[in-house]
Amino acid sequence: MKNLYTLLILAIWFTACTPKHEETTKIQIQDPLPSWNEGATKQAIVDFVSEVTNPDSESFVAPGDRIATFDNDGNLWSEQPLYFQLFYAIDRIKAEAENHPEWNEKEPFKSVLKGDMGKALSYGEHGIVEMVMGSHAGMSNDAFQTQVKDWLSTSKHPRFDKPYNELIYQPMLELLVYLRANDFKTFIVSGGGIEFMRAWVEEAYGIPSDQVIGSSIKTELVEQDGKLVIQRLPELDFIDDKEGKPIGINKFIGKRPIFASGNSDGDLPMIQWTTQGEGPRFGLYVHHTDSVREWAYDRESSIGRLDKGLDEAAANGWTVIDMQRDWKVVYPFELKEN
Amino acid sequence: MKNLYTLLILAIWFTACTPKHEETTKIQIQDPLPSWNEGATKQAIVDFVSEVTNPDSESFVAPGDRIATFDNDGNLWSEQPLYFQLFYAIDRIKAEAENHPEWNEKEPFKSVLKGDMGKALSYGEHGIVEMVMGSHAGMSNDAFQTQVKDWLSTSKHPRFDKPYNELIYQPMLELLVYLRANDFKTFIVSGGGIEFMRAWVEEAYGIPSDQVIGSSIKTELVEQDGKLVIQRLPELDFIDDKEGKPIGINKFIGKRPIFASGNSDGDLPMIQWTTQGEGPRFGLYVHHTDSVREWAYDRESSIGRLDKGLDEAAANGWTVIDMQRDWKVVYPFELKEN
Repeated sequence: MKNLYTLLILAIWFTACTPKHEETTKIQIQDPLPSWNEGATKQAIVDFVSEVTNPDSESFVAPGDRIATFDNDGNLWSEQPLYFQLFYAIDRIKAEAENHPEWNEKEPFKSVLKGDMGKALSYGEHGIVEMVMGSHAGMSNDAFQTQVKDWLSTSKHPRFDKPYNELIYQPMLELLVYLRANDFKTFIVSGGGIEFMRAWVEEAYGIPSDQVIGSSIKTELVEQDGKLVIQRLPELDFIDDKEGKPIGINKFIGKRPIFASGNSDGDLPMIQWTTQGEGPRFGLYVHHTDSVREWAYDRESSIGRLDKGLDEAAANGWTVIDMQRDWKVVYPFELKEN
Repeated sequence: MKNLYTLLILAIWFTACTPKHEETTKIQIQDPLPSWNEGATKQAIVDFVSEVTNPDSESFVAPGDRIATFDNDGNLWSEQPLYFQLFYAIDRIKAEAENHPEWNEKEPFKSVLKGDMGKALSYGEHGIVEMVMGSHAGMSNDAFQTQVKDWLSTSKHPRFDKPYNELIYQPMLELLVYLRANDFKTFIVSGGGIEFMRAWVEEAYGIPSDQVIGSSIKTELVEQDGKLVIQRLPELDFIDDKEGKPIGINKFIGKRPIFASGNSDGDLPMIQWTTQGEGPRFGLYVHHTDSVREWAYDRESSIGRLDKGLDEAAANGWTVIDMQRDWKVVYPFELKEN
């Protein structure tokens, strides 16, 4: 990367004597966040990036330390009326039911198969773990990835009638590109399943699989037809939520981020740990305030609850995105419709 | 990365009209592996890289899939007469002994403090784990990193009288640079401690902390003086050796490498799993054959044993580096001495 960067600098420098120079520099002076309304939120982001990338600033941060972490559910894509990964689990349980006659008598599978999601979810976290284990384990990792991709290409969100991976936030896509253009390394740090995300996030967000941190189940190396295969086991390995987020970041990245973005109380330890580091730091919350274009929910929501986080954001001067006020569009498909 | 790459291509393309063009292309025709003797080993590496980066070749691999994984001990730096991390553990145990009077009666600490390493190591893997727990846990992660850096700057290898992090292999440094210049992402995948390595490998190899996979102990998030801190616990989390290497690669990288390099039977599952993937794959073993400049050991060694791996390399056509024959120099300091 460093060499490539040097080559790039060299190469761009060489272009300075060509008439095409104007074309290349124009890229840099265009608005990097066109789907964000002007205002304090956008300005705070641009000011922070300008500061940490300015070699003459006391707040300058070396490129290798420009680590930015993003929650996924409710932060890069929607999470209502249910985490999309749960829709996947439900669809897989229905598809696999004939191979699991025992599910007809066993909750929460019994309720899922009857279509009674209220009851299925009434078993709480334990029930959700059961659903994930029943639908995400017992196959090779390659087979699982294929199943997720197949599901994404054939399933649609009940409200928008669009594939789930089109319900990603256009302003956040621009923010990711903007940060990377300024030599940030962008990571996903999500309570969602790490392999579930890896099946689609590279295409959706430009984030490669090794920059995805998430919850995981255990795996083992087995031999199938004379070849080694990673097999998924019905056993929890790591929950990447709440205190698990700093733990996961330390394990996978090995550095404290200088920029962290989330939307729920599950992201609070990540944002606290990030912003407590020395030097310039940026804490960012997405506040779901738009019941027309997306959803409005915060302190009372069972999914993506943002309660303590809102208080801490105010107390610590973190930036809070008011979705209704700050975003010109929410989803990429709105750009095509305009 | 992809954006940067596009910019690079654009920028280099623009330079085609300038008189400086010659200077930029010269970089590419210089020998990328100057410390490697000409021969089948070097040729196999260059041929593989040329093939997978040639868009007109059937073996072309997209940049995002050019994943290369390297074992560390005995593969990127030396590992004799003991894994260097064990020298660290021993030095730390001696330094901390006054705070642990119980160690005077407890093996393997008792033998370490008496200077009887033969006996300390006679307790096998269990004893080594005890030594690591006793010396690597019970402090914050930041404090641990500082201790490792301090140790590296003050300790010297008993045979070479050089800092341990100067006993890295010059030819492998060139290989890492060569691969990265060809858009490979280079990762360390080592049985050594992940945080022990992260303290120095970025400077030594140009590999950032998030591209380091290793064995780990558990951590917890605690509050110290009102701030969140990652604290290291005396409990094993993950052993990144043998079958653990493919498991660790799948967990951290989420893709099967196309290039894997190791030097012991502990690397065998990684090289097998890598080379069993579809499309072009490269398996590389370092064979320690140089008792004069480094060490000579293989099938009978208790450290870095290479026995089954040698047979598998021959059977599968993997490339085996004969250190004595293939490397012009072993360590970077030899270049300065010449």
